[in-house]
Amino acid sequence: MKQTHEQKFSENFKQIPKSFIREILNVAGRENMISFAGGLPNPEFFPVEALSKSASEVFAQYGAEVLQYAGSQGYLPLRKWIANRYSQKFGVEINPANIVITSGSQQTIDVVAKMFVNKGDGVIIEKPSYLGGIQALSAYSPSFLPVNLEPDGPDLLQIEAHCLNHVPKLMYSIPNFQNPSGVCYSQQKREALADLLKTYQLILLEDDPYSEIRFEGADEKPIFSLVPEQVFWSGSFSKMVAPGLRMGWVVMPDNLCAHFVRAKQASDLHSNNLSQYILYHFLSNNSIDEHLQLVREAYKKQRDCMVRALKMYLPQAKYVLPQGGMFIWLQMPVNINTDKLVEQTMKSGVAFVPGKSFFTTNTGENFVRMNFSNACQSEIEKGIKIIADVLTR
Amino acid sequence: MKQTHEQKFSENFKQIPKSFIREILNVAGRENMISFAGGLPNPEFFPVEALSKSASEVFAQYGAEVLQYAGSQGYLPLRKWIANRYSQKFGVEINPANIVITSGSQQTIDVVAKMFVNKGDGVIIEKPSYLGGIQALSAYSPSFLPVNLEPDGPDLLQIEAHCLNHVPKLMYSIPNFQNPSGVCYSQQKREALADLLKTYQLILLEDDPYSEIRFEGADEKPIFSLVPEQVFWSGSFSKMVAPGLRMGWVVMPDNLCAHFVRAKQASDLHSNNLSQYILYHFLSNNSIDEHLQLVREAYKKQRDCMVRALKMYLPQAKYVLPQGGMFIWLQMPVNINTDKLVEQTMKSGVAFVPGKSFFTTNTGENFVRMNFSNACQSEIEKGIKIIADVLTR
Repeated sequence: MKQTHEQKFSENFKQIPKSFIREILNVAGRENMISFAGGLPNPEFFPVEALSKSASEVFAQYGAEVLQYAGSQGYLPLRKWIANRYSQKFGVEINPANIVITSGSQQTIDVVAKMFVNKGDGVIIEKPSYLGGIQALSAYSPSFLPVNLEPDGPDLLQIEAHCLNHVPKLMYSIPNFQNPSGVCYSQQKREALADLLKTYQLILLEDDPYSEIRFEGADEKPIFSLVPEQVFWSGSFSKMVAPGLRMGWVVMPDNLCAHFVRAKQASDLHSNNLSQYILYHFLSNNSIDEHLQLVREAYKKQRDCMVRALKMYLPQAKYVLPQGGMFIWLQMPVNINTDKLVEQTMKSGVAFVPGKSFFTTNTGENFVRMNFSNACQSEIEKGIKIIADVLTR
Repeated sequence: MKQTHEQKFSENFKQIPKSFIREILNVAGRENMISFAGGLPNPEFFPVEALSKSASEVFAQYGAEVLQYAGSQGYLPLRKWIANRYSQKFGVEINPANIVITSGSQQTIDVVAKMFVNKGDGVIIEKPSYLGGIQALSAYSPSFLPVNLEPDGPDLLQIEAHCLNHVPKLMYSIPNFQNPSGVCYSQQKREALADLLKTYQLILLEDDPYSEIRFEGADEKPIFSLVPEQVFWSGSFSKMVAPGLRMGWVVMPDNLCAHFVRAKQASDLHSNNLSQYILYHFLSNNSIDEHLQLVREAYKKQRDCMVRALKMYLPQAKYVLPQGGMFIWLQMPVNINTDKLVEQTMKSGVAFVPGKSFFTTNTGENFVRMNFSNACQSEIEKGIKIIADVLTR
């Protein structure tokens, strides 16, 4: 009897959910579509000229070297730059030998999962959490252990209960301007979580792509700085510089780099060498802080614009005001099914991501993730008015 | 009791062998080291200026677009270029909708394995085979079913026996200038293998990074062209243009792209957007055939130089003369342990890869993979003389 290809799929592969976001990216990217859907940075702020100049200079200065195979751990000057910036910023010692350059933070999640997760292993995850994280982890068939997010961070009692009942293999969290909720863990919760990690010997994958996109309030220290021997701290150039380069990094505990590198080799040998050189050259010859200041000011205005529009047109939506990042997470009245809502709003030219995608528990129908970084202010207001109009109908 | 991080590693991760090649790349890349180790193209032929020009033009022409998140399937013009070139070259119909751009062919192997391989699933593999392929597949804990390579391709009776005894999930093979053996499947064996694939509904991952690096003889049709509904045909720009860009592609059967893309999304969202644009721009504005002609002529000379040196200094080494690619696979007398040999030759400034890495069967101690594409002719002769001297001692 003939077996279809689909019937041959691995059990793990079948667990990977589709990405609503990436499936609608083509639609959301259509002209005249106002998109609150993707986690897209505002391209207006991409340093096109500076990166173009860096590319020319790198080709002229290094020639063939940037086009050859390279070490799997990543370009050492770039790792040194990262170690230097974050050692200074957070008063924590970071060794470039403990950093691996990855092909974006999505790969970091995939590789950490590859290293640790057996089928059925407990993985503590925020509820809600980043869809891409859920996708990457799902490919290893974990048993997800969801933890509610409160306005100041995760429910610590739930984490402890999971540790007592399940011996989880790792926890995946996004402590700064979480995707999708916008929540930023308080210093108190960070310290309490660090204590729990120590007590239960729990490994944390601290996904931190948004910490540089803070509009207000003081920086919080990464949980990595509190318990460096148990945390994979994942950073990304996607929001700091540009996502099209697919460049991230991860700082990890001593003696794990060789293992991480082995898993990464199996996935893609090493990250794009040319882009590593261009990025390092750009960071060395430009002020990233000046660049980030522009981005922060702009995104803050876009967030404020969205908040004003929400107050005016969608007063029924509840949310925690995010102090940074790219998203506002709306809790709509319970009778609203946002899967159906988005079908309608897209007919009227507005896209967003319905909440269900961000849960491992088949819930969240009445939530909406709104991205405020990609659309301009007039579009933001117009788009939210359209959503409100569709809701009224 | 405290559990170490290593004790928490997943069962699959533990199966990934270390890469001798990548571990010695740093050493092999040292000045004064003559390296026959890596599968490194000769950087002299990287089109540095043309790629630099492409980068400038792409930034100027497309601006922010090349730096934004992009669709997971890859840049459509690049997929069309690939479809066009290989449709013409092999008289087979290739639809750009059936192509996905990957972050190098290593990722193609990883993603295909992720899609199909459950722990213990049978995977037919050439004996010897590409170390990176063994690494990528091992991360899914298959049961490897090795098949001997003869000078004209795999032992077909062994393949059939595996199909009868094990119901294998897929076969991984490199039909052109195989890594490490240099073997090129004959037309007859390709047709017979295609028949076996059909009879046993076996999926083939046809890894084809070297087909454009043929020095002599006529091109053989890809097995994909004989049984397109069962073959993932993987190509790479690493040897055609430059490996530092980490760009490959895969042509697959109808209706599997959406599935492949979902698995790739979980791994890295999408491939480097800037590099896709640069590559397409380069391919559109330069003659890839003229470029390849240069590479082929140079590599042929380097191969011939290595063959002359082998005849002169290492007459005891047996090999099949490769008509293309980058490697000569040496069978040394059975009493020679090449793991120990390379330790000694590296002290004298010469690196190669001992054969054991290319077997899933813990054999191959008396084999050596010699890369002839990276070293210049005087180094090739000098290096082989050094190996011979070390052997004499």
